[in-house]
Amino acid sequence: MQLVALDWGTSSLRGALIAEDGRVLEERSFARGILTVDKGSFPAVFESCFGDWMQAGTLCLIAGMAGSQQGWLEAPYCPCPAGFADIAVQLAWIEPERIAIVPGLSIDKGSTPDVMRGEETQVFGALQLLSLTDARLVLPGTHSKWVMASNHRITNFSTWMTGEFYALLSQHSILARTLPSTGTAHSDAAFEQGVAHALQGDGLLHTAFGARTLSLFKRMTSDALPSYLSGLVIGEELKCQQLKPGDNVIVVGAESLTQKYTQALNQFGATTRCVGRKATWLGLRNIANTLNTR
Amino acid sequence: MQLVALDWGTSSLRGALIAEDGRVLEERSFARGILTVDKGSFPAVFESCFGDWMQAGTLCLIAGMAGSQQGWLEAPYCPCPAGFADIAVQLAWIEPERIAIVPGLSIDKGSTPDVMRGEETQVFGALQLLSLTDARLVLPGTHSKWVMASNHRITNFSTWMTGEFYALLSQHSILARTLPSTGTAHSDAAFEQGVAHALQGDGLLHTAFGARTLSLFKRMTSDALPSYLSGLVIGEELKCQQLKPGDNVIVVGAESLTQKYTQALNQFGATTRCVGRKATWLGLRNIANTLNTR
Repeated sequence: MQLVALDWGTSSLRGALIAEDGRVLEERSFARGILTVDKGSFPAVFESCFGDWMQAGTLCLIAGMAGSQQGWLEAPYCPCPAGFADIAVQLAWIEPERIAIVPGLSIDKGSTPDVMRGEETQVFGALQLLSLTDARLVLPGTHSKWVMASNHRITNFSTWMTGEFYALLSQHSILARTLPSTGTAHSDAAFEQGVAHALQGDGLLHTAFGARTLSLFKRMTSDALPSYLSGLVIGEELKCQQLKPGDNVIVVGAESLTQKYTQALNQFGATTRCVGRKATWLGLRNIANTLNTR
Repeated sequence: MQLVALDWGTSSLRGALIAEDGRVLEERSFARGILTVDKGSFPAVFESCFGDWMQAGTLCLIAGMAGSQQGWLEAPYCPCPAGFADIAVQLAWIEPERIAIVPGLSIDKGSTPDVMRGEETQVFGALQLLSLTDARLVLPGTHSKWVMASNHRITNFSTWMTGEFYALLSQHSILARTLPSTGTAHSDAAFEQGVAHALQGDGLLHTAFGARTLSLFKRMTSDALPSYLSGLVIGEELKCQQLKPGDNVIVVGAESLTQKYTQALNQFGATTRCVGRKATWLGLRNIANTLNTR
């Protein structure tokens, strides 16, 4: 049975048509994240983007923010620790045996909870791809997730607003006046300098101001500042993970971000392995397979 | 000789008419920070706001961002360590013996410089007010300054973008959707909880996301979130200062902010003394007095 696998996030909608044996037959991507969809319009957007894939008997599984309060149908979080089987049996069905949403995970640490939606599916796919039962993973993004997996289960995770802080600082802060308004090429050297300053530094509240003074004193060109700032925020994220040199980290996500995180992690002294978008498709295919065999 | 003392900052312009003996005869405040003034319009704005105070022989001294590249006249930074006498002899004269700008300070730590403009005058005024030669001071604001003074000189300082991070997070981040759009009363309890989470926490990139999940899980009312977020960013700033319980910190600035910093510092276990706006006027009066006695 073919599977229509969707990753329906806040700002984008990606889908894959996946064969019974796991081969990705076709992929599509739309700028139709849930923020662009009115509450009642999810069925219509789904039909227009993927209706032709939904043959009789085809199953569609959806991971990501489509399962949030602002999404198509709210899928209650599975509490951590949680394994693949826990999310596979708690699907939120939009149409019985036809379209379902994969639940996200929640964790309660002291008084403050944390949540993820979509990353759990990527993590279980990545573990299978790499034949791992235990791992430390990072899923970079607007809100990066750091995940500990133990014996096939997600035992701990945390959210880091790194991508959003970069956007806030580069678009809305005093640094926006100094940064170039048009896109510039990534500078490895400036990124590395930013990572180094963050790792040695006193915290982002202070180091971010250095991006301004470096420019004020003409010690860094305007073109290099975005890469420097990117290094500062990613370096700050790494610094807070209590990593030791030699630790291994699995980096899961799109190539542009996994490259930066790999560079920063290697600079810190951690070893890395990367997994791309196919982790999501494999995770969803696996969930579909558990339904077939019930 | 009367002195017209100005604190001309990025977003506001404040002035005081000060008698020979230091008494403040009159104060004025205008929403005419340097960002609202065209490069050529500083003389006209000055004349309209304070022209009537400028009798024959009256001196005007200006501290703050009016001495920056974007200000009235650029006053080169004095390098640290610097004492009161260093800034008093390096005034940048707009009109000889009539209007001058007090230089800011710069410091070079490793590869990244840091700067202040205006706070140096407040610090020297505060030290005199409290009869101190050595102190650790914080000047809260959009860009807070932490200052070490030793033997009447500023020996070290650093900038913290705490106020700006609060504004970015509350106005432009995902948290803006959860925070109330109109002003709410300050909640001491929520502020204290934010400070505590920051002091125990893993860093602002992570703890800021907690403001969202606390709301998502209905563990904090929307009205309390601004105070909680304020506690998070101020707590993060304190956490990075390598303070020890029992340390004394002089808090210099406007009452609304010094109260919050005092609460957070006392919660951490530091002792505090507060100095208000009059530190600026005293600092400028002292500079004027050195000119009189030359």
